[in-house]
Amino acid sequence: MKKDLLGIEGMTAGEIASILDTAESFGEIAARPVKKVPTLRGRTIINLFFEASTRTRTSFELAGKRLSADVINISPSSSAVSKGETLLDTAKTLDAMSPDCVVVRHPASGAPHLMAGHSKASFINAGDGAHEHPTQALLDAHTIRRRKGKLDGLKVAIVGDVMHSRVARSNIFALTAFGSDVWLCGAPTLIPAGIGKITCSDDSLIHVTHSIEEAVADADVVMMLRVQFERMAESFFPSTREYCRYFGLTARRVALAKPDVVVMHPGPINRGVEIDAEVADGPYSVILDQVSAGLAVRMAVLFHLLGGGRDTS
Amino acid sequence: MKKDLLGIEGMTAGEIASILDTAESFGEIAARPVKKVPTLRGRTIINLFFEASTRTRTSFELAGKRLSADVINISPSSSAVSKGETLLDTAKTLDAMSPDCVVVRHPASGAPHLMAGHSKASFINAGDGAHEHPTQALLDAHTIRRRKGKLDGLKVAIVGDVMHSRVARSNIFALTAFGSDVWLCGAPTLIPAGIGKITCSDDSLIHVTHSIEEAVADADVVMMLRVQFERMAESFFPSTREYCRYFGLTARRVALAKPDVVVMHPGPINRGVEIDAEVADGPYSVILDQVSAGLAVRMAVLFHLLGGGRDTS
Amino acid sequence: MKKDLLGIEGMTAGEIASILDTAESFGEIAARPVKKVPTLRGRTIINLFFEASTRTRTSFELAGKRLSADVINISPSSSAVSKGETLLDTAKTLDAMSPDCVVVRHPASGAPHLMAGHSKASFINAGDGAHEHPTQALLDAHTIRRRKGKLDGLKVAIVGDVMHSRVARSNIFALTAFGSDVWLCGAPTLIPAGIGKITCSDDSLIHVTHSIEEAVADADVVMMLRVQFERMAESFFPSTREYCRYFGLTARRVALAKPDVVVMHPGPINRGVEIDAEVADGPYSVILDQVSAGLAVRMAVLFHLLGGGRDTS
Repeated sequence: MKKDLLGIEGMTAGEIASILDTAESFGEIAARPVKKVPTLRGRTIINLFFEASTRTRTSFELAGKRLSADVINISPSSSAVSKGETLLDTAKTLDAMSPDCVVVRHPASGAPHLMAGHSKASFINAGDGAHEHPTQALLDAHTIRRRKGKLDGLKVAIVGDVMHSRVARSNIFALTAFGSDVWLCGAPTLIPAGIGKITCSDDSLIHVTHSIEEAVADADVVMMLRVQFERMAESFFPSTREYCRYFGLTARRVALAKPDVVVMHPGPINRGVEIDAEVADGPYSVILDQVSAGLAVRMAVLFHLLGGGRDTS
Repeated sequence: MKKDLLGIEGMTAGEIASILDTAESFGEIAARPVKKVPTLRGRTIINLFFEASTRTRTSFELAGKRLSADVINISPSSSAVSKGETLLDTAKTLDAMSPDCVVVRHPASGAPHLMAGHSKASFINAGDGAHEHPTQALLDAHTIRRRKGKLDGLKVAIVGDVMHSRVARSNIFALTAFGSDVWLCGAPTLIPAGIGKITCSDDSLIHVTHSIEEAVADADVVMMLRVQFERMAESFFPSTREYCRYFGLTARRVALAKPDVVVMHPGPINRGVEIDAEVADGPYSVILDQVSAGLAVRMAVLFHLLGGGRDTS
Repeated sequence: MKKDLLGIEGMTAGEIASILDTAESFGEIAARPVKKVPTLRGRTIINLFFEASTRTRTSFELAGKRLSADVINISPSSSAVSKGETLLDTAKTLDAMSPDCVVVRHPASGAPHLMAGHSKASFINAGDGAHEHPTQALLDAHTIRRRKGKLDGLKVAIVGDVMHSRVARSNIFALTAFGSDVWLCGAPTLIPAGIGKITCSDDSLIHVTHSIEEAVADADVVMMLRVQFERMAESFFPSTREYCRYFGLTARRVALAKPDVVVMHPGPINRGVEIDAEVADGPYSVILDQVSAGLAVRMAVLFHLLGGGRDTS
């Protein structure tokens, strides 16, 4: 495996599957009373979060600790950044403390790539601007594979604010790498122009529609995106009520999909905005499976990157 | 023991004493050079603090770490709550990461109960609004028992802002469970109407007085409550100077109590407001013993809830 | 060794050298895959940071964890201080939880000394106002000794805001203890009046100059200080452009020093203000070595203070 995990773009189906296979074996650790293996004992992982996050930061911290690594949290408010340090100097300074891995979330696209290029540590992109969020796509793929037994030949609808969504971008790369069809659905203001230009493999297609009914029809998987109020500088749609009316996932709309459809959401969910409560809590929802998968997948990524195969006793 | 520790209300004297007995044996660990036992190795404890706290959060974090558990801190500012997630969704999301225990402090009464009902993890209430703060009452009981050798037949004065005090409520339940008499003392605006309706055992009585001299007279224990400036939306008393004059604990007032009285305060103290510096630092004060007891009691609670008796090797 | 490390003032060259010798042996741990030794297993270290800091807090946290201690972070915003607790009560409260060591950074000079005097724990001053920052001076000394093979007989220029710099003060004490000459250079408003009165040993001299060329000429070491915008209540110099022109370290000025000069900076650096980018990234810069040295030196200090020599198995 490469030194870093910065994005799904460019990863092959085989590389992704290899991580998911490892995640499969790590998944059962969460069910044990002693949720800890000595795999990464004595390794140092730094969680560097320039944006607030509960689930992703907690998931990475738990993943590291359950592998017995030492995990250090650094958040922007307590950071040298407020003293005017450049991102590159932050990267080099951390590198001088010999961490094995830096998990970074940053509001600017490309920030983790810049830092990774100047550090011996393995970098994991935990979300950079509207660019990529690779571990989210891996945990989504893991969740789908566990439910469907495969990642190819599926119809996957991704509904919502595709424009601002690093989750959507990373998922598009992952799903098309396996040869599934992706249907992007949102208001014209929320679908980036030229999205069709994203390279995808020969077996899969990216479709764009503004009708949620068309996107969801006969879908194997429906991925709802969060309305990210905090990320929208301008107002991209008239009101949350209007949003819900046109793009909210209701039970009636779920009924248009395949009978064994799974409904996904990266969380945190806005009930009654992009997803109805009865759908979020309903039988097709795998939202909490995604959270559990996140932990297993992040343990797998840490294992692959930090060369856990070496003797660590 | 039950899955959770959400309040003292409903606990029997026997259940409380059982935790204190365990705390007794954990207390000595703090005096060792190696302050660590492997009891909860590989267990995950999440500290979820929606309100800032030094002593309680630190005490729980240390308690968990000294039992060799992995402890994760989540604070409100960095939480999905700011993204509009419901409390229930936060509970379910955390649950999907398989923690063994969630310690929660929340400004709303009942919040830990709501979360606990939707999680497989053990929940510990670390303070919910003006409702309960059970580990505080346990550490107070532990401190009293170590000094007095018993928890029954005592006269305990609780002085101050009883209305807003979860500490007072939890202590009332604990002390009356053992059959001690509780004297509540405060300005009429700071004593909740109908406090007499709280069920207490046959052997104990709850008295209400607005005279600190009457409350303290012949008392075995005087518990001073913090004036919680940050929790008072309106002004409940004219000035801190006036407060101090009527309800502050001075050396002259301590002299009215039994000769072996102990003076308690949950901290942090407002010197010169509810308690004079010479009393806080004086020979009857057990305020720092309370802090030490807090660590031992929280280790005991974690041990009881997480079934430390199981083989964890 | 004494209970605490509160400042370099009063330390002998021998005491300093003893810590650096230990740091030498700890330095290699950072290069191992398993960066962990069991030396301080079961010890409790509290990082109490009343001022934000990335590098120092992270460095201490990593140092503690690599020695297998339990490390607890407390930051001011989440602290009882905001509830009006006095510094002394905070010290006594923490002490009641039996930590082995408290690392404290505080905006007020002398705060760590006050706290240390009322606690059984070892206190390490991680920076108190404009007073001292002893581990910074130790890591600087370690960096110089590794490059120059000695700490005596050197010409060391310290350039910048000496007035507000705890780094400068601690370094002056350390360098003169070994018998090196220190040249302080800055605008008249940024050099404290009476600096010459600082006691130094017979073999070393403190010089004051307002010419960076004179300070740097034939220097073995040039230490640049950070312009601490956040610490200056008033404006001490007209503009950063003007500052740079008179006191910024340029390649042309470095050329005036000895051919094997080392350029140091405590970080985070303000590129183009006190130091040019080409100098910070150039061949004479040891800025990142200082960061690595910081980790080794802090491990050494923890080891010396916490009596790591005792049997901890």
